Formats: sequence, structure tokens, C-alpha cells
Amino acid sequence: MPQAASPALIDDLVVANHVLVNEGVLDGFGHISVRHDREPGLFLIARSMAPGLVQAEDIVMCDLDGTVHDSQGRKTYVERFIHSEIYRARPDVMAVIHSHSPAVIPFGVTGQRLRPICHMSGFLGAQVPVFEIRHSAGEATDLLIRNQALGQALAQSLGGAAVALMRGHGNVVVGFSIQQVVFRAIYTEGNARLQSEAMRMGEIEFLSPGEAQAASDMNDEHLGRPWEVWKRRAKMAGY
Amino acid sequence: MPQAASPALIDDLVVANHVLVNEGVLDGFGHISVRHDREPGLFLIARSMAPGLVQAEDIVMCDLDGTVHDSQGRKTYVERFIHSEIYRARPDVMAVIHSHSPAVIPFGVTGQRLRPICHMSGFLGAQVPVFEIRHSAGEATDLLIRNQALGQALAQSLGGAAVALMRGHGNVVVGFSIQQVVFRAIYTEGNARLQSEAMRMGEIEFLSPGEAQAASDMNDEHLGRPWEVWKRRAKMAGY
Amino acid sequence: MPQAASPALIDDLVVANHVLVNEGVLDGFGHISVRHDREPGLFLIARSMAPGLVQAEDIVMCDLDGTVHDSQGRKTYVERFIHSEIYRARPDVMAVIHSHSPAVIPFGVTGQRLRPICHMSGFLGAQVPVFEIRHSAGEATDLLIRNQALGQALAQSLGGAAVALMRGHGNVVVGFSIQQVVFRAIYTEGNARLQSEAMRMGEIEFLSPGEAQAASDMNDEHLGRPWEVWKRRAKMAGY
Amino acid sequence: MPQAASPALIDDLVVANHVLVNEGVLDGFGHISVRHDREPGLFLIARSMAPGLVQAEDIVMCDLDGTVHDSQGRKTYVERFIHSEIYRARPDVMAVIHSHSPAVIPFGVTGQRLRPICHMSGFLGAQVPVFEIRHSAGEATDLLIRNQALGQALAQSLGGAAVALMRGHGNVVVGFSIQQVVFRAIYTEGNARLQSEAMRMGEIEFLSPGEAQAASDMNDEHLGRPWEVWKRRAKMAGY
Repeated sequence: MPQAASPALIDDLVVANHVLVNEGVLDGFGHISVRHDREPGLFLIARSMAPGLVQAEDIVMCDLDGTVHDSQGRKTYVERFIHSEIYRARPDVMAVIHSHSPAVIPFGVTGQRLRPICHMSGFLGAQVPVFEIRHSAGEATDLLIRNQALGQALAQSLGGAAVALMRGHGNVVVGFSIQQVVFRAIYTEGNARLQSEAMRMGEIEFLSPGEAQAASDMNDEHLGRPWEVWKRRAKMAGY
Repeated sequence: MPQAASPALIDDLVVANHVLVNEGVLDGFGHISVRHDREPGLFLIARSMAPGLVQAEDIVMCDLDGTVHDSQGRKTYVERFIHSEIYRARPDVMAVIHSHSPAVIPFGVTGQRLRPICHMSGFLGAQVPVFEIRHSAGEATDLLIRNQALGQALAQSLGGAAVALMRGHGNVVVGFSIQQVVFRAIYTEGNARLQSEAMRMGEIEFLSPGEAQAASDMNDEHLGRPWEVWKRRAKMAGY
Repeated sequence: MPQAASPALIDDLVVANHVLVNEGVLDGFGHISVRHDREPGLFLIARSMAPGLVQAEDIVMCDLDGTVHDSQGRKTYVERFIHSEIYRARPDVMAVIHSHSPAVIPFGVTGQRLRPICHMSGFLGAQVPVFEIRHSAGEATDLLIRNQALGQALAQSLGGAAVALMRGHGNVVVGFSIQQVVFRAIYTEGNARLQSEAMRMGEIEFLSPGEAQAASDMNDEHLGRPWEVWKRRAKMAGY
Repeated sequence: MPQAASPALIDDLVVANHVLVNEGVLDGFGHISVRHDREPGLFLIARSMAPGLVQAEDIVMCDLDGTVHDSQGRKTYVERFIHSEIYRARPDVMAVIHSHSPAVIPFGVTGQRLRPICHMSGFLGAQVPVFEIRHSAGEATDLLIRNQALGQALAQSLGGAAVALMRGHGNVVVGFSIQQVVFRAIYTEGNARLQSEAMRMGEIEFLSPGEAQAASDMNDEHLGRPWEVWKRRAKMAGY
């Protein structure tokens, strides 16, 4: 049996589940994981359940083949391969969110590129790739990332980026910590809303590549600030 | 007097009323019914009242002719024929929702087809019919489904679909259980919002027919997950 | 000193203030009045204050010249002439709301006609007039209805309609009761939101004149239903 | 050590932080300051923290060079130069808000001018300037106002206006009091939402210059009314 993860990490993962629901990134579906802090070949994720109801005792450990290691034999999400294959392909990634975050969906199905409209979303960088499951699994899937091969195809599509859209499905966001990945998921949704609005007004002046990088680096120094607020808002809402 | 329905079914129907209000599908109007679990020729529905205030004691039984069977002689909604005629025409249907769910209204009045933009709304399938009351009752009705003939015309327009729009009025959604019909009503509204947004961005790549079917089948295995969340949110909101 | 108004009427007026704030029709500004139930030459309205904070002791009486009759010498809103002149011109009107209800503003400044998109807003009828204060008071007013002459011009623009828009300012809604005028104000805002959305999708099939009339008559029989819900929501929100 | 500021002013500043978060102008970022009531060369602002969590003990004093005067040696926001340089350039300004208020962002990146669509936003006047940081600091900044030179450039761009947009970043709003600047920030966001909606409907009839001025003067006499409501709403929400 692997070592236990840090209780503080598990606490943050539970809070992150509630924050993401409360801020409108997750609804009854979607999931967030974090790489185990003592076992880099494992990650922590809730058992298969609604993220808004997750508590510390619901967190299970999963390895990079997608096998759950749980003394109670519980299962996690069908789409755990999103997480396992990204952790395998990207040693820099410590946390992963998969959501159906609503404002992002239209960008995945129309070919419009999601780009950083303001400094809060500099992490979007120059390129937000779009994953098309039809290229890997044909025209009649249920769109879920159900196995390692699909997880690998998605990880390949993500490449070195922070965010990848999934056509007709949602998106995946990665980060070097729970706080960073939550920040990115919330501002990916926000950027989508603002860009969609601005596109109707005229030509948009997006961040330059240099601005996107500098703003992203700067925001990484302030991740604790919104985290405290989102945490408090989730509590105020009753989570 | 017919047998009593299962108390658990009545409880779910009460919760469903509150969930649909809390998630923005119903306001002061609209209704949900479920087929009686022991008497397939009857269905359960609230007496004529605002759905957000419905309690177990407000549920009455109605037959497929639209006659209420209630020892206290209470009435139900004028538009009970939406329910009675769909239950008559569709033995597979166990639950029906009629709402004025806002994002769907524009699709009913502009000729734009509502289609599945992502896997959550695969149940929309290839065809969401639009019911035009003028074809049955002329140019000067109050748009309500006030009698059996109008209920039959609506059921005919629905055909084998999961959802039918009603021009200048709202929509009707059917399912094999309370949980499924609530899921479908909430994601019909969500799909309408997203499709409306995406239509302004460009040509939309909708789910293929195979994807819609596979995604719909898959979602039917997970109906309990969002149901628990919606239930909890309704409680958190004070229902 | 005039007779006291019915305490039940005053209670409803207080509740209506809170409901209109809670449903997003009023913010810190705007007002609702009701004609005195025993003195048709007077109406009841809050003293000059934010509608969300109004209590029964804040209600004052005002006559059709805009003079407040209050033993404590309190003032009401500068724009009381909206109310006084409509009550004078329209003996059928028992309640008046003036708001800056947001979705309606764009219709007042672009020449787009607000029309009934669904049966809930049949009361909009064939014609929602737009009041242009420049025709009465020139190009440099603060847009407020500050005196009898402006109140008369607005009442004339309203004519026999249920709603009039005020360019660059807001709108006024009238009804035969508090419940009806609240219903109309809330669904005027709702109709504006839906019509604005639908206009981007294509040509809209609005209610026919006969449908608008029939639907409006029908809704007038069910005004108590949403009223109870809005009342409860305002209480749940803490008003 | 400078004199202490009035406790009432500090209380209002704390409340203003919460109101701006609760009304959607600030999120985890952004800040509001007020000029010290006894030391015009100082201003009061929270230490570097999320505005929704600010309490009276978090307020520090800062001078017009951007140096914090705090017995505990605490720091304030990196972007304090927004405040210090505007206070220096504009003796009439007593309060400043910097936000990423969402509906305003699209106007900063598309060249569309923000203009007063209704009387509540007359303070926008004829001209809302847009600050382009590239003109001062090149193509690869993180967009923050990190030093006096950038603060001066922003203040120069603001000129005598009430609001300036900051491309790809947010906006700055100034006023003669906390209540006025909060009013302006909230209605700047509201105006952006309405103008964006109206632009899709057709040509907009904006307020004339005379109307904008008269409406702005009029609103300045009623600043206490919405302030009480926003304060109460922030308390109802749990701040």
C-alpha cells in the first residue's frame, strides 16, 4: 500500500472541488486531481461522485495506468485517464481539472481560437489546442476519455499548453499546484465570456506573447489571494 | 378510489418541483408530473399552484382523460392535457415537464433548430420538433393546451422525441424517470444558452447522430450524480 | 387629513418594493405606487428612499398634483409626477412602477420595438410607446420627470398602453392592482432579455394581436401564483 | 508619524471593499483608496490582500510617492502608483478604484467607445479615455502599473475624466468621495453591459453632453440612497 498523502493537500483538494462548483466551473460533473506529494506515480482524486459533495474521506489514490489503489475498493471516474496520461506525459504538472465549464464550450465547436484578452489569463499563451476525439476513436463515441489510448491522444493534443479544449465536451486545465490550476480554470471560463462578448464589438487587441508570459509569471506570485476569497465564498454559500 | 402511489415517488416529485425552480427551469409557472407507479393510467402532479411551494400533501392524481381523482376535490393545472395525452401516446414515458425555460424560447420563435452542442445534451438527438398551436386552434388562442385535442396535437408533434418546443410559449420534456426528465430539462436550457452563444461565433460542429445516441445512453447511467447536487442546492437555497 | 388606507394594501406595497428589488427590476432607485383604496384622488408611495429598505411606516400619501399629505412632513421622490399624472389620465390604473429595469434600456435607445415574444408578456400588446423627453424639455435635461408638465407628457405618450419606455432612462408600467403591475414589470424585463437574444437568431414570430390579448386576459386570472413565489423568494433572500 | 484618519472614513473604506466585491466590480483583485481626511498628501488603502476580506485593521497609509507609512511595516498593492499619481495630478479627487470589472474589458480591447446610455451613467461624459501601456513601457510588460512613471502616464491619460479604461487589464474610476466613486464604478460596469447589448440592436441614441452633465449633477445629490442598499446587500451576503 502506498504512503498516505499530506492531510493539507487532501484538504486543499476537497476545498478546490467546492470552489470549482461554487464559481460555476463544475456542475454535477467534472473532476480535479492533484499529484501525490510523496508518490509521484500516484494522484489523488475523488471517488466517482458529484464534486460539490466531496469530503476528505472520498479521496482515493490512482496510479498512472488508471488503477485505483483503495483499501475499500472504491472506484473513481471513468475519465480518470485524462489525469493519468497527463501526469505521465507532463512531469511538471501537479494538478489537473476536467470541466464542462460553459463559456468555453462554444470555442471548442466553432473553430474560434481562445486567446488571452487580459492579464489575468496570460497563461492561455499563444495557443489553446482543441482535441477532436473523432481523430482517435471515430464518429460515434460518447466523447468520454474512457481508456489509456484516448488519454494519451488528449495529452498529446495538450502538449506543453496550460489548457486544451475538447470538442463537444469541455476542457482540461493543468498547473503546478491546486491553487494555480483552480486559478487557471476560473479565468479560462472568464476569458471565454469576455472574448465572446468582445468578438461582437470588433477586432480584438489580444495580449502580445511577451505580455501573456509576463502577466502569467506575475499572477503566479499572487495565487493565494483569490484562493482565500474563493474558499470563503464557498463557505458562505454553504459548502 | 385508486391505490396510493409510493411515498418515495411523491417525495421525488416534490423535490423535483423545487430543483426545477432553483435551477431556473420553472418560475411561478410550469409543472412536472410522474406516472403513478401502481396505476399506469394515472399520473401524479401538484394541484394548481406555484411549483416552488409544492409539498407532498399538494400532489393529486389525474387520469389520462385529464380528470383529477382527489378526495378533497382539488383541481390541478389547466394544461394537464400536456401530461395526460403524452402519457397516453407514449407508454415509455414515465415523467413529463412543461416549462417556460427562458433560453429555449428564442428557438421556438425563430425557426433556429435546437441541436446537441455537447455530450450532456445528446438526448436532443437529430430533431427537436416545434409545436405551432395555430395549426390546431387558429390565430387567437391564449397558447395554453386547454383540452384533449390540443394535448393530442402536441403529443403528435413530440412524436418519439425527448423534447418539443412550443412556439411563443415554452417546451415539454419527457423521460423514463423523474431523475431523467429533470436532467433533460436542465440541460435543454443549458444547451440553448450555449448554442445561442456559439451561433454568433460561426458554424457549429454539433454532435453526430452516433455521438448523440452514445452520449445519451452514457448519461442515463449517471443520473443520480447531478440529482444529488441539485437536491442539495435546492435545500441550501431554502426550499 | 384623508382617511387611512387599508393596512393590507400598505403591506402589499411594502412587499412589492422588496420583490421588485429581489427580482432585479429595481436597484437603489425606482418606485412603485398604488392608488389609495378609499380616496381615489390620492396614491400611496414610499418616502424618498431606496426601495429595498421600505417598511410600512415609510409609506406616505400623495395627491394628483404631486403634493404629499404626511403628518410628519416627509417628502417622496422627485419623480412623483410620473405617478400623479398617470393616475389622473388613467382612471383604470390602480398601480404604477417606474424602474431602470436593465434589459429594457437598449430598446429605449435604439428604436427597436419591444413586442410580446411569448404568452407571459401578452400585455405588451401591439405597441410599446417610447417617451422622448427632448420633445418636451429640450436637449439638456437630467431626464427626470420633475414636474406636472413632464408627467402629463409621459402620460400622453403612454396612452392606453401597459408599458412605456423612457429613452435613456427606464420605463413605466401600469396595472389594475399591485399584483398585476408587479407581474407586468417582471415580465417586461424578461421579454426584453428574450427578444434581444432572439433578434440575433433571425426573424421573430411574435404573438399575434389576438394571442396577445387572449394570453394577457388569461394571465390576469393567475396573478396570485407567481406573487406568492416572488414574496417567498424575497423573504428567503433576507428582505 | 502622520495623524490618524477619521474612523468613520476607514469604516466606509472597509464597507466599500465589500460592496465592490459583492456587486461584481472587484473579485480577488483590485483596490479602492480614499484620500486621508486630515493629511491630503496621504491616502488610505488596504494592505496587499483580497478586497473581500479587508477589515479596519488592514488599512494602511500611503504617500504620493507610493511609500507606505505603517508602524507594522506592512506593504500595500504593487499598483499603488495608480492611486498616488492620480491623487497628485488631481487635487479634486478624493477616492480612486482600480478594478477588472468584467463588462468593461471588451471596450478596452476593441476601440469601441464607452458612452453614457442612460442617466445613471452621465458621469461618463463625452470621453472615456483608453490607456495603452505599450506607449509607455513597450510590448512585453505584465500590464501592471508598477512605478511612478507608469502611474503618471495613466493619470495623464485619465486627464479630467471620471473613468479611464486600461487596455487588456481593467479600468480606473475617480470621485470626490467614497460613495461617489463606488456609485461610478458600479454604473460604469452596468453601462458597459447595456451598451454592449444595445450595440447589437442598432444605432444608439446616447445622452447628449448637456444631458450627461445634468444627470451626473443630479445623481451626485442622491449618492446615499444606493449606498445604503449596497451596504445592506453586502451584509445580507455575509460580508
